[in-house]
Amino acid sequence: MTIANVANDLNFQVIGQEMYSLIEELYPICRSITGEGFRQTLRRLQCLIPLTVHEVPSGTQVFDWTVPKEWNIRDAYVKNAVGDRVIDFRQSNLHVVNYSVPIRQRMSLAELKQHLFTLPDHPDWIPYRTSYYKETWGFCLSHRQYLELKDEEYEVCIDATLEPGHLTYGGYYVAGESSDEVLFSCHACHPSLCNDNLSGVALVIFLARHLAAGPHRYSYRFLFIPGTIGSLTWLSMNETCLSNIRHGLVVACVGDKGHPSYKKSRQGNAEIDRVFSHVLKHSDPDYEILDFSPYGYDERQYCSPGFNLPVGCFSRTPHGRFPEYHTSADDLTLVTPAALADSFSKCLAVVNVLEGNRTYVNQYPKGEPQLGRRGLYRLMGGVADSGLDEMAVLWVLNLSDGTHSVLDIAERSGCGFDSIRRAADALIECGLLK
Amino acid sequence: MTIANVANDLNFQVIGQEMYSLIEELYPICRSITGEGFRQTLRRLQCLIPLTVHEVPSGTQVFDWTVPKEWNIRDAYVKNAVGDRVIDFRQSNLHVVNYSVPIRQRMSLAELKQHLFTLPDHPDWIPYRTSYYKETWGFCLSHRQYLELKDEEYEVCIDATLEPGHLTYGGYYVAGESSDEVLFSCHACHPSLCNDNLSGVALVIFLARHLAAGPHRYSYRFLFIPGTIGSLTWLSMNETCLSNIRHGLVVACVGDKGHPSYKKSRQGNAEIDRVFSHVLKHSDPDYEILDFSPYGYDERQYCSPGFNLPVGCFSRTPHGRFPEYHTSADDLTLVTPAALADSFSKCLAVVNVLEGNRTYVNQYPKGEPQLGRRGLYRLMGGVADSGLDEMAVLWVLNLSDGTHSVLDIAERSGCGFDSIRRAADALIECGLLK
Amino acid sequence: MTIANVANDLNFQVIGQEMYSLIEELYPICRSITGEGFRQTLRRLQCLIPLTVHEVPSGTQVFDWTVPKEWNIRDAYVKNAVGDRVIDFRQSNLHVVNYSVPIRQRMSLAELKQHLFTLPDHPDWIPYRTSYYKETWGFCLSHRQYLELKDEEYEVCIDATLEPGHLTYGGYYVAGESSDEVLFSCHACHPSLCNDNLSGVALVIFLARHLAAGPHRYSYRFLFIPGTIGSLTWLSMNETCLSNIRHGLVVACVGDKGHPSYKKSRQGNAEIDRVFSHVLKHSDPDYEILDFSPYGYDERQYCSPGFNLPVGCFSRTPHGRFPEYHTSADDLTLVTPAALADSFSKCLAVVNVLEGNRTYVNQYPKGEPQLGRRGLYRLMGGVADSGLDEMAVLWVLNLSDGTHSVLDIAERSGCGFDSIRRAADALIECGLLK
Repeated sequence: MTIANVANDLNFQVIGQEMYSLIEELYPICRSITGEGFRQTLRRLQCLIPLTVHEVPSGTQVFDWTVPKEWNIRDAYVKNAVGDRVIDFRQSNLHVVNYSVPIRQRMSLAELKQHLFTLPDHPDWIPYRTSYYKETWGFCLSHRQYLELKDEEYEVCIDATLEPGHLTYGGYYVAGESSDEVLFSCHACHPSLCNDNLSGVALVIFLARHLAAGPHRYSYRFLFIPGTIGSLTWLSMNETCLSNIRHGLVVACVGDKGHPSYKKSRQGNAEIDRVFSHVLKHSDPDYEILDFSPYGYDERQYCSPGFNLPVGCFSRTPHGRFPEYHTSADDLTLVTPAALADSFSKCLAVVNVLEGNRTYVNQYPKGEPQLGRRGLYRLMGGVADSGLDEMAVLWVLNLSDGTHSVLDIAERSGCGFDSIRRAADALIECGLLK
Repeated sequence: MTIANVANDLNFQVIGQEMYSLIEELYPICRSITGEGFRQTLRRLQCLIPLTVHEVPSGTQVFDWTVPKEWNIRDAYVKNAVGDRVIDFRQSNLHVVNYSVPIRQRMSLAELKQHLFTLPDHPDWIPYRTSYYKETWGFCLSHRQYLELKDEEYEVCIDATLEPGHLTYGGYYVAGESSDEVLFSCHACHPSLCNDNLSGVALVIFLARHLAAGPHRYSYRFLFIPGTIGSLTWLSMNETCLSNIRHGLVVACVGDKGHPSYKKSRQGNAEIDRVFSHVLKHSDPDYEILDFSPYGYDERQYCSPGFNLPVGCFSRTPHGRFPEYHTSADDLTLVTPAALADSFSKCLAVVNVLEGNRTYVNQYPKGEPQLGRRGLYRLMGGVADSGLDEMAVLWVLNLSDGTHSVLDIAERSGCGFDSIRRAADALIECGLLK
Repeated sequence: MTIANVANDLNFQVIGQEMYSLIEELYPICRSITGEGFRQTLRRLQCLIPLTVHEVPSGTQVFDWTVPKEWNIRDAYVKNAVGDRVIDFRQSNLHVVNYSVPIRQRMSLAELKQHLFTLPDHPDWIPYRTSYYKETWGFCLSHRQYLELKDEEYEVCIDATLEPGHLTYGGYYVAGESSDEVLFSCHACHPSLCNDNLSGVALVIFLARHLAAGPHRYSYRFLFIPGTIGSLTWLSMNETCLSNIRHGLVVACVGDKGHPSYKKSRQGNAEIDRVFSHVLKHSDPDYEILDFSPYGYDERQYCSPGFNLPVGCFSRTPHGRFPEYHTSADDLTLVTPAALADSFSKCLAVVNVLEGNRTYVNQYPKGEPQLGRRGLYRLMGGVADSGLDEMAVLWVLNLSDGTHSVLDIAERSGCGFDSIRRAADALIECGLLK
């Protein structure tokens, strides 16, 4: 049973619901680039796939960077003069600037305000802020809350620790026929944000479960890492194996209602770039292909000049282009089971094309072989025929000279990959192709 | 006297009429891929050019194919209960499915209907059907006729033979200065169909007559063959000489009123592809350049991956894109002398470009040579000048560095080939170019 | 102090005025391709830059050409029957066909008319005509004047000499760090014409003055030559040094109010072609990039196939595309200080890009280096950021793999060259780039 066959049996509606349920479960956890939140998330994922959890000590050098101290938080609040929690970590973990150093202090409103962040343009939303590499503290709150703060003394408390510990990440490797690898990478370091972070985690988990089930040509690697420092750490610890990576995808923001988009790798014309473009072209009326730029998610690291891996990025609405990005509005209402299922099906289609994109050689290259007696061609001629499938057969025979892959043939003919692949399969079966 | 000069003396109107008359003569003959109809057609063509007729025995293996038995037909009809011929081969040879096995039998209407073919969308037209590689029989008729058939007993007769014999084709070779060859190929295997089949035959015959008359650089080969099996047979019998073929054209459907179209060879950027595009661009406001696809006429065989010859296909409306295609409506009213003459002139222009497309070297490449004292440049300067011819002269000098052919220069400059060639001739004459 | 810094201190308005004043001074001189007018022009320019004046004897062979006799003129007129000067060289030096042989003769109007040139479409303008290589004489006049000529006898006088002498041209070389050269060439052989001729002279003079003042990587060569024969002569006398020329520009018609245009070199994708296109794209809403053609100014010679130098041509409205071209209407009202200043600033921007277009290598190519601790990246993340400068920094790091120049990075990123260069400078400063 090939991957393509398995895919036909899938109930995408059910998978979309399951992905959404996983996101619901993970949503409340206060993740960061290190700490218990990240570990708790991986433990939940281990119920679904046999993820290996890696712990890298603080202080470890990774290229130009150093693995930071581990951050953990128990509670945080700002209390007003009468002792009410006017900002409360327990209501939303976005209220605390991620990686804030511990503090417990009384201060005036003026002093406090220097540590408050709001979004005046979206007065009901809490912004998401981090300060990984500068030791400071702060609170985020809605602009409406902010305006209600009275000029009085406040008690500020962040009950957090920032101490030597570990950076944690999860990896899962599914061996295929070949040691050539396809990499799927997602970041899992954001607290209560759904589209940016959890949608990618859910998609990669379900893809991993699916690919673990069936035989395949490529090996597949799935990474659940903190953004930037996580991919740097993984790259630094696996430098000698990177040459196995033939294709790769960073997956993020795949649960919103926008149309699918694909950002090309730095190489720009890598097979993964052509494959993803082909899949979108043949499955969606609306989609977007973006050129590589050195901003975005972990493709920045995979595509740095020292590695230049063929890794693109799959999103629906790209990061920073939806207003809810990095705010409390990136919540459970922003992502939908239908969008998640559609994103999953796109990745599966990409995997199917990668798996099937071989190069064959026509065994009867001089003139056309006689297809009629092999049942591959209508026997009674003379009528104009739309003949889509016959065209695919003729294209495969014409271009299978050892220099054109199935994808090459699909692109030049304008036929879909599946149509060309079915034609190739039929021709192999009757010995015309090898 | 060069080909170009000859062309100027031609009366294209007269040639169009002569081509049309030839089509009128050949129209009634019942041709097929083998048999007397094909031979009779070649005999008529031998009155016009000294065609060599080749006979290849049935059963001969040609690549993956076998030369089929020879088919001949004397008469065929369907008689109704009172003995009237309700379908009569003598009225149109399209009434019999081409290559029908002999039959003489009485049968009910229900039984007969399994062997009848009509075109409900065009109730007055008889379809053209063949069954070369599956032994069966059938009749084609207008849908109007079909609806009038009463539920009675019919006498069915096809007085044909399908027996070991030969496949017949005609070839004509005109030697030029060089053994490098230009191939013109047309199929002549269709019965009473004018645009698809006879228009190509007429054009290639008159081109052959014209090229036989004058000196030329290339050798020219003209093939009159049954479609598919004919080109395969010729390729199989001439495999060692194929490397002589520098350019080639399949000619078909060149008599209708549509604008000219050219379908590129599989190579896509062969000289013939560039030349035909250039000729159409500079001679027609409306024309179409089509990418290669592995469907169509004998370019399918010439462009199969084992040969990959630089052979394109010239048509006016391409096969299958005019409603009369493969029906009785592809008759003497569909083709016109004017369209035939225009198609002929296009091919002649293509031949002229091929003949003249040489690469020269500027003998004074450092700076411009002084054209004024050689009479190639206006001597009194200072006025803006549209100067088309002067521009051609300057372009030839500027690009004739040994890497640009006359066509290259025409394409980059935007000038027509003839203008560039005249400039080159003038420069050769005064020693500036070699 | 680099060229870029110097440029920021320039007052372009003042420079435009100075260029215009120089044009005013040079306007009345009767220049030709040889003779005192040309020498007088160079003497004036020597007050501004230390120009070397070269004298090449008549009869010297330059490639396919011969340096012509020297032409000088004192006076010329046509007097009517009562002795009035109806055409008077003293009123406009355009009245005499440039390079007219001496004549002093009485003749009828009919005879005279064979030597008169007018522009019926522009009845108030005097055309500009030359006859360098055919010994003849003539007068140019407005069509209005022409119509007023009565049928009487005229006295015709051209007090000129055409005798062995010299061809004169000026050159100025400013050495840079490298012997690699940038060539600026302008023709200075037209009499009272402002846009075509003097605008280019003025621009090249002020560019030379500017470049003489500061240190630079390239050496710069400035040529003030008679058109065609001048560039041929210079090329012929400097053939062994041409390989030093890395980039070049012919400058002409840079004072009119049209938008800037750049005509590419014959190579078509030389660095100068890309640089000028980039500068125009990033500084002007309206501009035009023209493909090379072998007509125009001295780029015809520099780009002849024997040299094929990377030399483009910078103009505002290209020659022959403004109605005043080669007429008395190309006078001091056609050019403006503002347009001259703008053209000057474009050339300076091109020089700055050429000077700064180096290729660097990222010293931390594996992943991104940590920019935050080097002050090159905002430290508190989490907010979408328009971040233009940060983008430039990231692009430089991502593409600086030794195969992309600063211009390559600017083009691929869509950022302006200056923005990329500033980013590169900052990265060099902190050791990330070499």
